[in-house]
Amino acid sequence: MRKLLRVDMAKGTCITEDVDKQYPNAGGRSLTSAIIAAEVNPHSHALGASNKIVIAPGLLSGTSCVNSGRLSIGAKSPLTGTIKESNVGGTAALYLGKMQIAGIVIENLPAQGSLFSLLVKTDGAELMPADDLKGLGNYDLVEKLKEKYSDRVSIISIGPSGENRLSSATVAVTDPDGRPCRHAGRGGIGAVMGSKGLKAIIVDPADAPGVTIHDRAAFKNASKFLKNMLVESEYTAPKTGEYAKYGMNLIMDPVNDLGALPSYNYRQGQFEGVSKINGKALYNTIKERGGKYNHSGCSTCIIQCSNVYVDMEGKYVTSSLEYETLFALGSNCGIDDLDALAQMDRLCDDYGIDTMETGCAIAVAMEGGVKSFGDANGAIELIKEIGKCSPMGRILGSGTEVTGKAYGVVRVPVVKGQSMAGYDPRVIKGLGVTYATSTMGADHTAGFAAVFSETDRDPKGKARMSRDSQNLMGFIDTIGICFAVTDVAKQDNGGVESMANMVNATYGWKKTMKDYIELGKNVLAMEKEFNEKAGFTAKDNRLPEFMRTEKVSPNNTVFDVSYDEIDEVFEQ
Amino acid sequence: MRKLLRVDMAKGTCITEDVDKQYPNAGGRSLTSAIIAAEVNPHSHALGASNKIVIAPGLLSGTSCVNSGRLSIGAKSPLTGTIKESNVGGTAALYLGKMQIAGIVIENLPAQGSLFSLLVKTDGAELMPADDLKGLGNYDLVEKLKEKYSDRVSIISIGPSGENRLSSATVAVTDPDGRPCRHAGRGGIGAVMGSKGLKAIIVDPADAPGVTIHDRAAFKNASKFLKNMLVESEYTAPKTGEYAKYGMNLIMDPVNDLGALPSYNYRQGQFEGVSKINGKALYNTIKERGGKYNHSGCSTCIIQCSNVYVDMEGKYVTSSLEYETLFALGSNCGIDDLDALAQMDRLCDDYGIDTMETGCAIAVAMEGGVKSFGDANGAIELIKEIGKCSPMGRILGSGTEVTGKAYGVVRVPVVKGQSMAGYDPRVIKGLGVTYATSTMGADHTAGFAAVFSETDRDPKGKARMSRDSQNLMGFIDTIGICFAVTDVAKQDNGGVESMANMVNATYGWKKTMKDYIELGKNVLAMEKEFNEKAGFTAKDNRLPEFMRTEKVSPNNTVFDVSYDEIDEVFEQ
Repeated sequence: MRKLLRVDMAKGTCITEDVDKQYPNAGGRSLTSAIIAAEVNPHSHALGASNKIVIAPGLLSGTSCVNSGRLSIGAKSPLTGTIKESNVGGTAALYLGKMQIAGIVIENLPAQGSLFSLLVKTDGAELMPADDLKGLGNYDLVEKLKEKYSDRVSIISIGPSGENRLSSATVAVTDPDGRPCRHAGRGGIGAVMGSKGLKAIIVDPADAPGVTIHDRAAFKNASKFLKNMLVESEYTAPKTGEYAKYGMNLIMDPVNDLGALPSYNYRQGQFEGVSKINGKALYNTIKERGGKYNHSGCSTCIIQCSNVYVDMEGKYVTSSLEYETLFALGSNCGIDDLDALAQMDRLCDDYGIDTMETGCAIAVAMEGGVKSFGDANGAIELIKEIGKCSPMGRILGSGTEVTGKAYGVVRVPVVKGQSMAGYDPRVIKGLGVTYATSTMGADHTAGFAAVFSETDRDPKGKARMSRDSQNLMGFIDTIGICFAVTDVAKQDNGGVESMANMVNATYGWKKTMKDYIELGKNVLAMEKEFNEKAGFTAKDNRLPEFMRTEKVSPNNTVFDVSYDEIDEVFEQ
Repeated sequence: MRKLLRVDMAKGTCITEDVDKQYPNAGGRSLTSAIIAAEVNPHSHALGASNKIVIAPGLLSGTSCVNSGRLSIGAKSPLTGTIKESNVGGTAALYLGKMQIAGIVIENLPAQGSLFSLLVKTDGAELMPADDLKGLGNYDLVEKLKEKYSDRVSIISIGPSGENRLSSATVAVTDPDGRPCRHAGRGGIGAVMGSKGLKAIIVDPADAPGVTIHDRAAFKNASKFLKNMLVESEYTAPKTGEYAKYGMNLIMDPVNDLGALPSYNYRQGQFEGVSKINGKALYNTIKERGGKYNHSGCSTCIIQCSNVYVDMEGKYVTSSLEYETLFALGSNCGIDDLDALAQMDRLCDDYGIDTMETGCAIAVAMEGGVKSFGDANGAIELIKEIGKCSPMGRILGSGTEVTGKAYGVVRVPVVKGQSMAGYDPRVIKGLGVTYATSTMGADHTAGFAAVFSETDRDPKGKARMSRDSQNLMGFIDTIGICFAVTDVAKQDNGGVESMANMVNATYGWKKTMKDYIELGKNVLAMEKEFNEKAGFTAKDNRLPEFMRTEKVSPNNTVFDVSYDEIDEVFEQ
């Protein structure tokens, strides 16, 4: 039986159900979104009793499939007001999959001010008072919990920002080294977990039965196909691939070359300090100092895009320093100091706050005159204000939109209240369409409609391209496969089909690839319906005004995909 | 010719047009909303170059009609994102009407950081650098300007909160005593004026030709009818009426008796400290100390609901201390100290920040643990933070919704981002419908659907009642008549018709009462269309969740007018 664990924070109970009774065949994002859509009043306050958190490994998580360690965490978002699925790596998805736990649902609110931790074992779960954990940063918290439980557990937790219900608060998941450095960053799910008074979930996989594979031979074949594809790619090849070397930051140079690297609060598309923070700079610094590249951030990963950043003495600072962090806190704030950026990343992970939202919020605050662009120490001070939860910290921690409002700033790069990612939509227009139309607010992983060539600047066909990519991601996020895999394993080379074949082999289904794309589409439809009930319409699928009026250098282009076309394509 | 004065802040030009060419027969709210709807992109940022401010006296302003001194100020609101007409008294509407200036339109943005004042005279207008006025509170500002120009000008101005583009910033207008104590409070129009770099408008009525009355005899008849009606009412009778004695605070006792007085952030409907801040307490305190009740806040007013509040030494503190201020900063924050409340009112007027939005924001901050309910000194400190524009001040000054977000508070009494007025919608349900459906966010003056009896608690017919009341206000706000007049002069006693007759007599029109109600309805339709283009739908016409789930004592009722009924009635 694939289990659904329902945890009632008001009653203090943990109940196990058969997930397939109510939500047949659902997993990952298709499960989180189904439960939020069916059980949460779209008009409710995201931090109120009616909201729920759903934590669900993908359908392939727990199997031996490569890069299948992704966890979906869903809720109504306090940042965007939309439904939200925030996706995270680490070790929890693998363990939950092996434990045959398809989902954990956190419901209701405990007595005000109380704090709990949840221990999830193969044979049951238990809520425990956690007053001793109050206010702890994720790093100290995890040390304390590992001492108590063991190194073999996975920990899903919030830092002080989640406890303080800041709209950009994350949910951290420990990586294979046991560090709380993998974050479901977007949309403030950490604040929802804080509102529920849940500080940490300890997932202990001891005695896990593992996933029962219906057709082992078929699974093995498909699994081998996908693995080979990754092994043979120059990007994803283990140890020698570009990702293994430069991590996700591999992308900074091509983005800068295209003129799409957001710099100075999306004022420029190229950053003069790029060579100090790009993939090579990161790789060289880590290598020189004896840190780690080619590091595993998620269970079953063979791409190894993670890294461990160390200081000049070789001491651990943070893991993993990634592109989206380096753009948001780096070029977008005019900061080109890797050590400072690593320190900021560490602070954000410890407080449990989204580096992307925080970077964009700080850039908007800089635009509002709070600090100067390029002031690395100033940015570190501001992040520490978030940790202290001072009024300044509450402004920044509430996200880019609130920061813009508080400082009367007009250039605020958000859609549906969520900040954009590291690709200027005036240059990579397919991503502009994704930012505008995603059910999650401005989100690049929702549909990475980019090819990194001049054609990205052509508005033609980008609505359709984004739509197809978003539908595909509805499937990918459901099965628990890493987003980076889709860089190599595509629909036209059998890569995606091999994933579908593995799902069929695991569960004994006979679905076609078309069925699975339909499934992805249905996930999005479900999410869209929730958002519509919450009051969102096509009119919310718009980029901020300045993206259509202000040209970004050096291409001097604006976002000019017609909204009529966008609305039309997304109606289909 | 009724003139429209267009002031371009980018070019520094002032151009006069014939208003009737582009906006025939429009005045007050029908002019502000027509211009915003026609000329402002609904998707634009409220503080960006595309927004405009329109300042328009009502159609009867400038005539001798009693209580016709209301000024409409319109823009896209930075607080709500909707179209906004904020209505204010003082002397400006009379003067502009006499100068035959139907509207002033402030367009575009000047160079960043520059500040101007605008001198409007009968024969033309002029923009002047105003760096010397930077950062001044409204009181010092007005003193300085009166010294320079004379006591006979009317001054429309912003305080530091407007300069700092806070979403709750007001536009102040001087009263007949020349004090900046009349405020277009709602919706943050002061922030828009701040974004335009316009610190003050000096309206000098010297040599004003006055309004040409087409049919003097008919005007006199109708004017006399309305005046008599007010003179004969126990509420509005000059000098002896209830309003003259207790001002708008007359209403606190009946609201409290009904159980609709918002107390402790809308947790209770009755306030145990009511007798210390109600109409009688205010009247007695003012009388004892030699302040003024029966005071005129607006030109041509005979009701005299204003007052001058003095301290124990008889020294001026503020004018006018009104019900909405006393509920918002008083009962709603658990504060029952009149002197403290008068000080808060004075501070808010000086900084140029809405007392209603600020009171509700402070109550939400109290709910979030920033201060304790009832802490008057704490509340004063918080308001001073707004004046300093510290991070805390920026949170509170950005309004109740942002404050709720920053502090993770679930009980946030706003609709479309604007805080509710001093009538709990779970008890006075007609006002609940107005809060929900008004084109302006939660606003009581948009349609005062209350009768102050038990029937207010009955959900039946309230959607229709609010709708009719809102349509009527579309007309009232167009002609510049004070909201309080409609308490006595109604549609079923000829009062409203006398106003229509005056408009006909003034302009030589032959419109029927039905035409004028249709006019009011059209104003709302225009506003609704703007909001729809901006992305608002019927789904935004909702009260916050807790108003439907949490019973308010002592009636223990929730807001239960069905949204189906509301949507249906407002579709007609």
